[in-house]
Amino acid sequence: MAAVPAWPPRSTPRLFVDEELHEGPRHIDGPPAHYLLSVMRLKIGDAVKLFDDRTGEWLAVVEATGKRDLQLQLRTLLRPREPVPDLWLCAAPLKKGRVDWMAEKACELGVARLVPVLTRRAVVGNPNTDRLRAHMIEAAEQCGRTALPELAGPVKLTALLREWPPERTLFFADEAGGEPAAAAMRARPGPAAILIGPEGGFDDAEREAIRALPQAVAIGLGPRILRADTAAAAAIAVWMSVAGDW
Amino acid sequence: MAAVPAWPPRSTPRLFVDEELHEGPRHIDGPPAHYLLSVMRLKIGDAVKLFDDRTGEWLAVVEATGKRDLQLQLRTLLRPREPVPDLWLCAAPLKKGRVDWMAEKACELGVARLVPVLTRRAVVGNPNTDRLRAHMIEAAEQCGRTALPELAGPVKLTALLREWPPERTLFFADEAGGEPAAAAMRARPGPAAILIGPEGGFDDAEREAIRALPQAVAIGLGPRILRADTAAAAAIAVWMSVAGDW
Repeated sequence: MAAVPAWPPRSTPRLFVDEELHEGPRHIDGPPAHYLLSVMRLKIGDAVKLFDDRTGEWLAVVEATGKRDLQLQLRTLLRPREPVPDLWLCAAPLKKGRVDWMAEKACELGVARLVPVLTRRAVVGNPNTDRLRAHMIEAAEQCGRTALPELAGPVKLTALLREWPPERTLFFADEAGGEPAAAAMRARPGPAAILIGPEGGFDDAEREAIRALPQAVAIGLGPRILRADTAAAAAIAVWMSVAGDW
Repeated sequence: MAAVPAWPPRSTPRLFVDEELHEGPRHIDGPPAHYLLSVMRLKIGDAVKLFDDRTGEWLAVVEATGKRDLQLQLRTLLRPREPVPDLWLCAAPLKKGRVDWMAEKACELGVARLVPVLTRRAVVGNPNTDRLRAHMIEAAEQCGRTALPELAGPVKLTALLREWPPERTLFFADEAGGEPAAAAMRARPGPAAILIGPEGGFDDAEREAIRALPQAVAIGLGPRILRADTAAAAAIAVWMSVAGDW
């Protein structure tokens, strides 16, 4: 593990900025400013780390503070945007709380893309993509990540399958079971995706359509019933450990 | 997969009862009765599944209902208590919300025992074991489980290590990294435990004490920082997939 520099301290706040960063001055206002001023209580001379999901993570220093805004000076690129294993998570929307947890875990575990998938039995119709993105940003800020999962627009399962990229394996967790996950994943290196159904499961027609896709591989996640968010985190972890960058 | 009988329906409510069940009449009152009467709206003739974490899962039929209580008749044992892989989760308390998720996931993923561990940097001092148990019971009820993780009393890390059973491997997720988890776990079959530190991590003395234990194996869960509840679920899933019953 690389030596940990003494400054800036580990507790230095990290903030995601949704545009390309570069050396020089930067003005911060709105909710991020409130967070830095009132929650983190930053003063002139304090450090902030900014990352943009493009160039990487930058060290910035507070040069001036107002009631509701700050002036930062971006000094140097600390780390380039990290490499991300080529795994997608395709998941049907879940109830609030569970879908938030799933989006956070997908981000922490290093998923490259999160694809909300609309299925027949999904209880929640329209996934709130702003909310999903906000949860992923928060997870990335707290866990020191310099990359965010891409967040695809919601897509119907039929369209997802119809447009499926031929070089990508689609591992799907089916209640009916399948090849044990670790073995199935270790045997098929390369770009991959995990498909998780809604709380009610896939219906028979959907399951047939998925199984009909040449790139689809049914995986078993053990003999116990797992909730959708648990299955997502478990399947991602297994993939990362046998086919990803663990 | 075994054929799914048509009755009782999949939506049949499941209830945990903390004493040994047997054929015959059973009176239900209090919160469980409220749940069955007012939430699930059960009527005479409806089915209920009861499980006790001892004998297994029983089919019961509603014979009479009152305002706040029901009389059930337990007819038959549907399934014996399921086998449980021999994995412990030893985890420092986390903030509410996160620790609840961790307890639920531990139950869903089939952990045999959950051991709350007190460390120096744990933000939360006294884990609320009633709350942990309630979350595990709910997860078991909803996921069709017939076994609950044992919930050990909170123990200080020093005592946990001092009394460590010699035949059990202790995989610990250390920020400093270790052997990739899948390989480390596959190479060491048998009774195991996963040790997860608090949100602030272990301090240096604790890390030394853990590493000094002959049965301890430091595992790496990838290059990304994972929150404690994520690390717990990920490590359990990997163990289940390479050394458990997946």
